[in-house]
Amino acid sequence: MNYLKKLVMGLICLIFGLSAYAQQHPSIMLTKDNIGALRKGISTYPLLGKSYKKIKSEADKAIKEPVNVPVPKDAGGGATHEQHKKNYLNILNCGIAYQMSGDKKYAAYVEALLLKYASEYQKWPLHPKRKEGHQGGRIFWQSLNDFVWQVYTIQGYDLVYEAIAPAQRQQIEKGLFVPAVKFFTEDCAETFNKIHNHATWAVAAVGMTGYVINKPEYVEMALKGTAKDGKAGYLAQIDQLFSPDGYYTEGPYYQRYALLPFLIFAKTINNYQPALKIFQYRKQLLAKAIETSLQLTYTDGTFFPFNDAVKGKTYESAELVYGVDIAYADIKSQPELLDIVQKQGQVIISDAGLKIAADVAAGKTKPFVYKTLLITDGATGKDGGIGILRAGTNEDQQAVLIKATSQGMGHGHFDRLNLLYDDNNVEVFPDYGSARFINIESKKGGDYLPENKSWAKQTIAHNTLTVDETSNFKGNADRAQQTAAEILYFKDDQDLKVISAAENNAYPGVKMTRTTALLKVEELQKSLMIDVFRVDADKAHQYDLPFWYKGHLTDSSLQLKSFADQLKTLGTQYGYQHIWLNAEQAVPEQTGYLTLLNNKRFYTVNFAAQSPVNLKLLTLGAHDPDQNLLESKAFMLSSTGSKTQTFFTVTETHGSTNTVDETTSGSSSSVSDLKIITAGPEQISVSFKVKGKLYHYQINFKNKENFIKVN
Amino acid sequence: MNYLKKLVMGLICLIFGLSAYAQQHPSIMLTKDNIGALRKGISTYPLLGKSYKKIKSEADKAIKEPVNVPVPKDAGGGATHEQHKKNYLNILNCGIAYQMSGDKKYAAYVEALLLKYASEYQKWPLHPKRKEGHQGGRIFWQSLNDFVWQVYTIQGYDLVYEAIAPAQRQQIEKGLFVPAVKFFTEDCAETFNKIHNHATWAVAAVGMTGYVINKPEYVEMALKGTAKDGKAGYLAQIDQLFSPDGYYTEGPYYQRYALLPFLIFAKTINNYQPALKIFQYRKQLLAKAIETSLQLTYTDGTFFPFNDAVKGKTYESAELVYGVDIAYADIKSQPELLDIVQKQGQVIISDAGLKIAADVAAGKTKPFVYKTLLITDGATGKDGGIGILRAGTNEDQQAVLIKATSQGMGHGHFDRLNLLYDDNNVEVFPDYGSARFINIESKKGGDYLPENKSWAKQTIAHNTLTVDETSNFKGNADRAQQTAAEILYFKDDQDLKVISAAENNAYPGVKMTRTTALLKVEELQKSLMIDVFRVDADKAHQYDLPFWYKGHLTDSSLQLKSFADQLKTLGTQYGYQHIWLNAEQAVPEQTGYLTLLNNKRFYTVNFAAQSPVNLKLLTLGAHDPDQNLLESKAFMLSSTGSKTQTFFTVTETHGSTNTVDETTSGSSSSVSDLKIITAGPEQISVSFKVKGKLYHYQINFKNKENFIKVN
Repeated sequence: MNYLKKLVMGLICLIFGLSAYAQQHPSIMLTKDNIGALRKGISTYPLLGKSYKKIKSEADKAIKEPVNVPVPKDAGGGATHEQHKKNYLNILNCGIAYQMSGDKKYAAYVEALLLKYASEYQKWPLHPKRKEGHQGGRIFWQSLNDFVWQVYTIQGYDLVYEAIAPAQRQQIEKGLFVPAVKFFTEDCAETFNKIHNHATWAVAAVGMTGYVINKPEYVEMALKGTAKDGKAGYLAQIDQLFSPDGYYTEGPYYQRYALLPFLIFAKTINNYQPALKIFQYRKQLLAKAIETSLQLTYTDGTFFPFNDAVKGKTYESAELVYGVDIAYADIKSQPELLDIVQKQGQVIISDAGLKIAADVAAGKTKPFVYKTLLITDGATGKDGGIGILRAGTNEDQQAVLIKATSQGMGHGHFDRLNLLYDDNNVEVFPDYGSARFINIESKKGGDYLPENKSWAKQTIAHNTLTVDETSNFKGNADRAQQTAAEILYFKDDQDLKVISAAENNAYPGVKMTRTTALLKVEELQKSLMIDVFRVDADKAHQYDLPFWYKGHLTDSSLQLKSFADQLKTLGTQYGYQHIWLNAEQAVPEQTGYLTLLNNKRFYTVNFAAQSPVNLKLLTLGAHDPDQNLLESKAFMLSSTGSKTQTFFTVTETHGSTNTVDETTSGSSSSVSDLKIITAGPEQISVSFKVKGKLYHYQINFKNKENFIKVN
Repeated sequence: MNYLKKLVMGLICLIFGLSAYAQQHPSIMLTKDNIGALRKGISTYPLLGKSYKKIKSEADKAIKEPVNVPVPKDAGGGATHEQHKKNYLNILNCGIAYQMSGDKKYAAYVEALLLKYASEYQKWPLHPKRKEGHQGGRIFWQSLNDFVWQVYTIQGYDLVYEAIAPAQRQQIEKGLFVPAVKFFTEDCAETFNKIHNHATWAVAAVGMTGYVINKPEYVEMALKGTAKDGKAGYLAQIDQLFSPDGYYTEGPYYQRYALLPFLIFAKTINNYQPALKIFQYRKQLLAKAIETSLQLTYTDGTFFPFNDAVKGKTYESAELVYGVDIAYADIKSQPELLDIVQKQGQVIISDAGLKIAADVAAGKTKPFVYKTLLITDGATGKDGGIGILRAGTNEDQQAVLIKATSQGMGHGHFDRLNLLYDDNNVEVFPDYGSARFINIESKKGGDYLPENKSWAKQTIAHNTLTVDETSNFKGNADRAQQTAAEILYFKDDQDLKVISAAENNAYPGVKMTRTTALLKVEELQKSLMIDVFRVDADKAHQYDLPFWYKGHLTDSSLQLKSFADQLKTLGTQYGYQHIWLNAEQAVPEQTGYLTLLNNKRFYTVNFAAQSPVNLKLLTLGAHDPDQNLLESKAFMLSSTGSKTQTFFTVTETHGSTNTVDETTSGSSSSVSDLKIITAGPEQISVSFKVKGKLYHYQINFKNKENFIKVN
């Protein structure tokens, strides 16, 4: 019996041994014994004071409004949806304001709202506008939102518990919480017992409710699934949803979202049953997951937007405020986390927030350290991973990301060996993210748009190879879920950072490797990005390698002649139908360059190919009747008729423009003479010049000791 | 004899009366008597200290480099161009560093550079890459850059004058300055004697050189032209290039550029010949011009980019730093200017900078007041004008600009009655500006691109009416220069700001009026933009009114069906050849709306037309072989077959989205039921509803007392 199993069994015994919990309120993010210190902290520590001011102002706004509990009717972004969202936030904010001010008006407002819900909830049928492919809720269009609602509401209830008379408490618990839990664990049992982020919200909602209203059975279901056998529930989710590196397989956007219920439920468990040592579970997995979430951001705080991501989401989001606060206060007090807290500009009004605000005020902050690292995917860490290569400071950083993971479940994209490049606080080679206008009702109720499937998920939407105008696994998610990419090599030296990965299942009979490096050469200030994409097949194929880019083309070695009076689509399916072909031409001697100007800096992509290639310029927007697609553009290396192909690019980051001073420097690339010397499955040898100095760059796939040789 | 003429005559007499000037060095931005105080100020006042630190660091960088005076060879942005630019900046920076530190190494560097120029200058022929349509320089591709070079260099020379031995001074003056002035006043006489911004640089260069090296004749030519008759030269330029409101007819981008030589020469004149009272000339015209330049920026500091403007230029540019410093220190010490200084974050190391830094440190700053105002064009203020309507604070301001001026000479666009709308610190309905990648050599040497003429100048590139797919004045600048638009009405009330203008010459037999208002109604937080474009002709025409917009379409009353597999151009000439037509459809009942999401805020354009219209969606990019055009998109109301047409739009600014918190509010418009009740040449009466409340809006063209009636 290994360590993990022993721990699980021990936990189960502990749970069975308890019939009821010590009842003291509040007992989740704020605990009764700490209220005095927190009240004092608000006037002592600026960060805590500022954070509370915001909560109190929201609470003051809330109590001025009449109690409004509409019959659920609208989809995401619609009026009833937004009102119920507002209500749970008001419940939590007023709960905090009550505890901090002692003013009963806040508690009275929460009580009135909850009594109204208690008198209405059981009358509501399943939501009339159920979200396609998702289990419906009662308050919201999908059950997920109902779970979230409960996670917030139960905290608010815990905060005002002692201000509500027993009779009214009974009314609320009987009319609202008990039937809600029944709905979650019976009607929604299938979701509840999944190993999936929706289920995490479900178990957190039920478990936290169990602790607060003293129903041990709820807690047991939450921890072990409705069958109470440990095959589902919270602990099984921690075991299976995260890799040993704390990576959540759906990607950073959902990792962030999934984390909140994990953490807040952990915090609740820890307060009620500290003996369970939940924060130590699976080698402090939750702390690792928070650290990994932060490492999955660029220096501007945005999450790398691969898979179904809403772009512009940053670590300032509520989930990471909770996450970082809990990680610092309850798991490991790393002073680098305080840097993130200061950028978040707020703390949760909580025991954790108090500790953090005090430590920030005491000057304990150290700069957050962004690392070059490999983050493995899969419960055992064997399903490939994400390689992130970084160079430069937190103020001006080059960051290259290679995605070589598993599919990432329903929110995964068909983007094996995708490459992203951020620099100078903006995207250079971006990921499209998801096709979605979240919360904008006129855009399909804020849900994923049809173009999410027809465009955003398709391989051609990404900076990776599409074979024969067909997506990885022919766009079949179930097949994609069966296998993962493979990490061949990872290295983090001072001047050379490398990730190499292989994908041999995405296309039958086609073997692909991508080896990407950030190489610092003495001739240049910024690191070069060296990317070698090798493909080997049993027969000839069309190979398309696009670079979706931001900025504007300012120079090229080729005379690019764009089509003047007419545009046609690049293809007919797998996303190609959404692309306008703007220009196409053969590349003489298979080598050339393009220069982009983006955010006042130049990027020259020097490229060479082993077999003949065409260069194509692309823009997005065809077959888009509802204007759902965002402006996007790419240049693409495209070859036909070869079995094997090697795409070799050296991207130089150089120079600057200043529109205020009207000055320009370093607008030409210093890189030249790209050559592919040999390229086979065991070894690739290329060369290039930097300011005339010759560099040889060799990849030895079979030799881990000497995988990359630069001289 | 009017006041102005008397003053000019007086000035001329004064000049004649002088044969040489009091010779003391330095005597321009820094004066000898003030050096001690300035040195002290650098350590006393943070703003001055910070500004000097930057200069000194540049100077320190400069003196480490070898003297490099290459034979002129490259176009704008090229290596020799950039080196000579760098040299004049180094000369000035080292001059300042010498005066502030007393360290002779800086003076020695300037001396070495100037001696090198003195030994080379006369060998250089006209620049080999002369800029098309412009007079060539010797150091640079156009004489303009040579003038600028001299304006900077002569200041540097003045600063190190006393550190250079007389023999070397003679070498420099004889080998460089005297032949340069000869080149400017003889070879470039035509430019020198123009009433044009190039000539302002020329006269400043020559006049300042005259004062510094004690050549009264130079000063005389500078003030009165080479013929010394006052028909050309500095005073004639002040008289003719600015309107009484201090508006420079080429527009803000060139106003900014033109101002620097005006000011720095004025400052020089004032130091050497204070009796001329040059800052008082033409009712403090120069101070007015600076104030007007600032009013021609949006709250983010960028100049409104109409005419040939490089976008992204702000009042942080050197010209406005000089301008604001001189305006405050030498003309009128308005504490609001200190707000701009603080945003600029620097002062000129100068007598003016010292005064400003002291006053900032003393807390005299008041917030800059952005005004709703009419700025007239033309030397007598009769050539139409710019109407700017503003609502909101400096942090979140709505700004509408209507351009109803003269052509604005060679840099003017064919955009009579153009409309720009900025809000929330971004452009909503932008101006394309110029088609130019300034200083980027791969883009035609950084010069105006062919698309500047074929696209950026054309009427269809602007948010105004194009008749029969033909630009204003058929794109003939000379014809356009003959007449100007006419301002019909301007009003600045608390809740209603209006500009109304007419243009009757741009198309034969076609009369156009545009009446645009910002109206605050009690139902809404933000002002509504109400725009009524009326056109009347003697026969039927095609009328196209585009709104080039930023952001993304999120909603529309029409089912917009974009073309799926093929795009064609909108037309064949006058800019239409550059436009892809993405969608087209008839507008039922001639009314509808479109909603845009831009920078997390919604904009709904509710529209109605008097005669049948089609709605077209457009993107830019056709006939663009070299990828010179920037992404741009528009929706356009288009009608054919009517003599008269009225386009009535109510643009509501509403709601918000937050991608971090994933919240959306106010995404639907509160405006509805647009109706055109009557529309004739004397009166237009329209109505609309806001949250169900009916508003009548009437324009009475013949009644200035009651021009706009809202009820």
